[in-house]
Amino acid sequence: MTKRCKVAVLGATGLVGQRFLQLLESHPWFETSTVTASEGSAGKRYRDAVNWLLETPLPEGAGERVVRRTRPEEVDADFVFSALDSSVAGPIEEEFARSGVPVVSNASAHRMDEDVPLLLADVNPEHVALLPAQQQRREFSTGFLVTNPNCSTVGLVTALKPLDDAFGVEAVSVVTMQAASGAGYPGVSSMELLGNVIPFIAKEEEKLQSEPRKILGRVAKATIEPARIVLTAQVNRVPVVDGHLESVSVKLRRKASVAELEQALSEYVSGPQRAGLPSAPERPVIVRAERDRPQPRLDRMAAGGMAVVVGLIRPCQILDFRFTLLVHNTIRGAAGAALLNAEWLVKKGLLGPRDEISPAQAGNEATLVS
Amino acid sequence: MTKRCKVAVLGATGLVGQRFLQLLESHPWFETSTVTASEGSAGKRYRDAVNWLLETPLPEGAGERVVRRTRPEEVDADFVFSALDSSVAGPIEEEFARSGVPVVSNASAHRMDEDVPLLLADVNPEHVALLPAQQQRREFSTGFLVTNPNCSTVGLVTALKPLDDAFGVEAVSVVTMQAASGAGYPGVSSMELLGNVIPFIAKEEEKLQSEPRKILGRVAKATIEPARIVLTAQVNRVPVVDGHLESVSVKLRRKASVAELEQALSEYVSGPQRAGLPSAPERPVIVRAERDRPQPRLDRMAAGGMAVVVGLIRPCQILDFRFTLLVHNTIRGAAGAALLNAEWLVKKGLLGPRDEISPAQAGNEATLVS
Amino acid sequence: MTKRCKVAVLGATGLVGQRFLQLLESHPWFETSTVTASEGSAGKRYRDAVNWLLETPLPEGAGERVVRRTRPEEVDADFVFSALDSSVAGPIEEEFARSGVPVVSNASAHRMDEDVPLLLADVNPEHVALLPAQQQRREFSTGFLVTNPNCSTVGLVTALKPLDDAFGVEAVSVVTMQAASGAGYPGVSSMELLGNVIPFIAKEEEKLQSEPRKILGRVAKATIEPARIVLTAQVNRVPVVDGHLESVSVKLRRKASVAELEQALSEYVSGPQRAGLPSAPERPVIVRAERDRPQPRLDRMAAGGMAVVVGLIRPCQILDFRFTLLVHNTIRGAAGAALLNAEWLVKKGLLGPRDEISPAQAGNEATLVS
Amino acid sequence: MTKRCKVAVLGATGLVGQRFLQLLESHPWFETSTVTASEGSAGKRYRDAVNWLLETPLPEGAGERVVRRTRPEEVDADFVFSALDSSVAGPIEEEFARSGVPVVSNASAHRMDEDVPLLLADVNPEHVALLPAQQQRREFSTGFLVTNPNCSTVGLVTALKPLDDAFGVEAVSVVTMQAASGAGYPGVSSMELLGNVIPFIAKEEEKLQSEPRKILGRVAKATIEPARIVLTAQVNRVPVVDGHLESVSVKLRRKASVAELEQALSEYVSGPQRAGLPSAPERPVIVRAERDRPQPRLDRMAAGGMAVVVGLIRPCQILDFRFTLLVHNTIRGAAGAALLNAEWLVKKGLLGPRDEISPAQAGNEATLVS
Repeated sequence: MTKRCKVAVLGATGLVGQRFLQLLESHPWFETSTVTASEGSAGKRYRDAVNWLLETPLPEGAGERVVRRTRPEEVDADFVFSALDSSVAGPIEEEFARSGVPVVSNASAHRMDEDVPLLLADVNPEHVALLPAQQQRREFSTGFLVTNPNCSTVGLVTALKPLDDAFGVEAVSVVTMQAASGAGYPGVSSMELLGNVIPFIAKEEEKLQSEPRKILGRVAKATIEPARIVLTAQVNRVPVVDGHLESVSVKLRRKASVAELEQALSEYVSGPQRAGLPSAPERPVIVRAERDRPQPRLDRMAAGGMAVVVGLIRPCQILDFRFTLLVHNTIRGAAGAALLNAEWLVKKGLLGPRDEISPAQAGNEATLVS
Repeated sequence: MTKRCKVAVLGATGLVGQRFLQLLESHPWFETSTVTASEGSAGKRYRDAVNWLLETPLPEGAGERVVRRTRPEEVDADFVFSALDSSVAGPIEEEFARSGVPVVSNASAHRMDEDVPLLLADVNPEHVALLPAQQQRREFSTGFLVTNPNCSTVGLVTALKPLDDAFGVEAVSVVTMQAASGAGYPGVSSMELLGNVIPFIAKEEEKLQSEPRKILGRVAKATIEPARIVLTAQVNRVPVVDGHLESVSVKLRRKASVAELEQALSEYVSGPQRAGLPSAPERPVIVRAERDRPQPRLDRMAAGGMAVVVGLIRPCQILDFRFTLLVHNTIRGAAGAALLNAEWLVKKGLLGPRDEISPAQAGNEATLVS
Repeated sequence: MTKRCKVAVLGATGLVGQRFLQLLESHPWFETSTVTASEGSAGKRYRDAVNWLLETPLPEGAGERVVRRTRPEEVDADFVFSALDSSVAGPIEEEFARSGVPVVSNASAHRMDEDVPLLLADVNPEHVALLPAQQQRREFSTGFLVTNPNCSTVGLVTALKPLDDAFGVEAVSVVTMQAASGAGYPGVSSMELLGNVIPFIAKEEEKLQSEPRKILGRVAKATIEPARIVLTAQVNRVPVVDGHLESVSVKLRRKASVAELEQALSEYVSGPQRAGLPSAPERPVIVRAERDRPQPRLDRMAAGGMAVVVGLIRPCQILDFRFTLLVHNTIRGAAGAALLNAEWLVKKGLLGPRDEISPAQAGNEATLVS
Repeated sequence: MTKRCKVAVLGATGLVGQRFLQLLESHPWFETSTVTASEGSAGKRYRDAVNWLLETPLPEGAGERVVRRTRPEEVDADFVFSALDSSVAGPIEEEFARSGVPVVSNASAHRMDEDVPLLLADVNPEHVALLPAQQQRREFSTGFLVTNPNCSTVGLVTALKPLDDAFGVEAVSVVTMQAASGAGYPGVSSMELLGNVIPFIAKEEEKLQSEPRKILGRVAKATIEPARIVLTAQVNRVPVVDGHLESVSVKLRRKASVAELEQALSEYVSGPQRAGLPSAPERPVIVRAERDRPQPRLDRMAAGGMAVVVGLIRPCQILDFRFTLLVHNTIRGAAGAALLNAEWLVKKGLLGPRDEISPAQAGNEATLVS
């Protein structure tokens, strides 16, 4: 790639949209060319349309940008990041892809479509192999759809992947304690969450119980054969701003020790690490030895928010092992995951400045899997 | 009982001690005669010795009382409630019992002693049958030791008991989200808990994994045969003042439906309910049908804080059923549990004004079990 | 009054509406006959229309009630409590009054109308004297409008009134730390308030700077001559569920000592106290001597939430005295204030069962002031 | 300075000590040579002695350091930063200075000593002129004592200084909403602060009312003539981790407009800015135009936590102007202030590697004021 990619952020005023702009501010490969939002915000300066809620200042450049409507003809970009609300994302993302623009999406709309990669570049990088068949089946020319998982799923599968590789994962029980930012803005009322825990998040248990099976599945003939893992999830919202904590129990297919689990987790690397991608954490999983970690306030920004932090690995009386994990839900669990996915797509020749890439470059399934 | 019992509260300045005084303020059977605390507080008015942290005012009478040292000779009482710190409670409670004063304790020191009932009056009322043998073995005259479980255990076993009666409980996996008050005062620093979750509470998992087996065990020859239940627990501290929330999965011995579980839970009553004891909730378990309940802020004061609230009962992909429960940790889970235990002991003729009760009245194991 | 008044709660699904239903549940004089809400909720059972957010259970009776639209013809009541949103309350309240139904309102719409009492029954009970002229001027038959102040104003003027009576208040500087419930539901997003303070509440400073002058003003010829007090306010939203805390400085017209202020505040009583009204706190102001009180969590429920708690009275280097006050913003500061106002109106013969009261009974300004 | 200064952090395990180590980790001029703590921690690795509570990881190098006792003979440093608890800091700091080691302290012990600069390098840089006389009077050779103000004072005086320069400040009324970290660790119990506000912080009002008069005073004959400003303060602790918010009213000596205040504040620079010191924020004060800023969560890290953020400047009905300010209490308000002070002392030739600086270099009062 000889020049930077122009990228648009769709749904840029929401919390995940804000994270995209924050992470893109100093990105070496990508530069924000367009921000879009709903009709009510179109035409305003981004600064005036957004209720900026991140702890770093609104990037100067983004603030002055005029917000566009979320339509292909209003967007000038080599590809788009979608931070659209899942209730509207489905047809809009399809429309963009059809117009020739690759869509790297954080929305749930297409995640379980059988021809759409549910991608975490350092967990299942080989799932990009679905793309040629997707383009063919949907009659896309240069466009395509790639999604990343739900925020709580990201934390879970990032920890499960090294264990699955090393020992085989058979069953997983997870109880989550999820942060307010996972619900977006305005999301949960302060009247509901202050000094309280809410044991319900719409559709979250379903996602946690289905997405990992696809992500950890294997590519077979342009589709994904789901992993045979039994999952059960209970989800809770806690009064924390950022950082989902998850208490996990796992049953493994092969015998293992706590030390072997720690080693498998802390030594795990994947394609993005080997390729030295700009947003790839040095290690996707950081294992902490303290008896009281991970904690959301102290650990969510590990590796810039891109590492999943695991602690308290110990035997389980019912399944085999228990541990606690933490994932920064809007970085590793959303915008950062999409960003790393995009970098991986660039690396694989599937994304790039429009005049430097052609559909032909995308190669075929075989080369993408390797 | 023709007159009210005089009771002392040992360790009255702590959070659980405060709850005892709050609950005793208008108790029909018991009246506070003595409050004790550590050496540093002895001799002060209670009002000046305590950092009162409850949302109702310090009871007038208690406030004016002079704090005594925690020694039998300083206490004038028919029996004592112990809210002592578990690190010191062991020998002190034994000393009181040996001096002839029954001890109804919330401390953990003697909970797992084989001759000491780990009692929840509306869960295992028959466990008082251990007392005659305890008095004999420890050579106590009129004194004895009765304990109640750890706060998070109280919530769990109160919900398990109706299920165990109806279907048999084989295995339990629980993840807790526990309130700050469970750590006492000063307990957890605000620097650690504000906007955070801490996945560690000292000795808590061990208690959750051992206490239920004793509580749900059966009396056999003046000892308890533990229930054969496998338990695994993961504990977390959340930024909530009062109310422990627990995400539970259970494996049952007999087939059941969600409706049958709801019925078993919501219809459960025990001795204290049948006897109409003053602190007994109408139903130990309240089942809520909403998809987002129980919640600590909204449900902890159900039945004056004495009911355990259960919701979200649904099948589990790994064990049989999942549900969420809430227990007010310093009422039902501590002071209120001890109070109900004392009422039950009165009902069984084991406690009362000293001139109205004799050791002979305590009867034998056989009558106590019935 | 030989029988109970039938009352409707307008806007019953909001937070203040919920407080009305909670406080009315066991009211000796009033019984809820109708609950109204917006079009979207009309026709549903109240239980299904409301997101109940109070820490006591939804009253059984209210839960089963069918929600009506907020129109006079749908309401069967001797008078109505208005918990309507201020953006819509103005014309609706007027319509009810015009239809013959007295309106006791918590909304801000008519507060500063010169013929509408801005009433706190134990602060300015004589302001009901505006009503005959109001009825005449607006051509109301049996209906009329009475309002209570903004929640933060209620706390402030309740503390200022005894000082104004005793020493004359010349200037007031107040900085508030207001609870989330003051913004209603959903109100402030948890993303904005968790671990944060927001130094802005729309129109709040204006209310704090204008309402006290009317409330502490004197009735003169069917109008209010505003008190000559200079007020300056700065408002902040803090992550607290209920209870507005206010740091106040006052300049008095006459010399006084801290002890005299304490005495004036703690001895203050007014008409509702002398009349023994059911919702009247024994003393409108409770003075605490501790160096760290009042606190929202510990003091908001003083006198059932109907007393204002004052502490930390000490000299001020710029004005004369400083103190800190706390008001339960949705009880004393909203629904409870309206309830006490209604009781006072009953006491003055201005409200009652329709067949027991006639406009003629309302008397004239002279008798109402006394 | 041709090489880096070796610095010791006294009291390194506390919250302010942690901030020192965090800020020193990549400092261009200073490197941590020794960390000290109380007897109980001496001999341990810092990693094992500290309960690290900051959101960035414990610096690798510091973690491996062996903790020393806080005695001059255990410390190898060109100068020391003192994060000692104020209850013990007084004699220890004096002992270090007497042993020849300059002390740059955050503790309150010596702040109001008449020969000790109460320094904020970009507010009153000329106060270093006290040092020659201090050394002479106390018979220090190369050692001396320099202190920085209390955290809430830092925020206040940084905003007052530009106004005092431009318009003269005559009177100040301030109400603070202070973060938990200001109380150190463990500091305030979570039981006291969750969902609550505490209107008391020991000695804080006294500091806010006295320190600004010294800081804004003028150097005259080796002493400080205090500024003639009347100050009144009310302090509150709010459930926020970091960032003190302050609602301020000021009376000025000369007429001014809101625009002129904004200009004076936002254009203010001082010696450290002109000298380009490494820790100096580009502007000590950032003025925000939004109606709801500053906010602790969003603004505390402005300029790396070294800028004071001011907003909501508007007229006051009693004094002249009101505004709200925010200061990061452990960066700008503590460790960062001391660091900038040390940089300024280096710039003035008063600190440096021991073999590059001599007492003679310290110059005299005249050159230090300029």
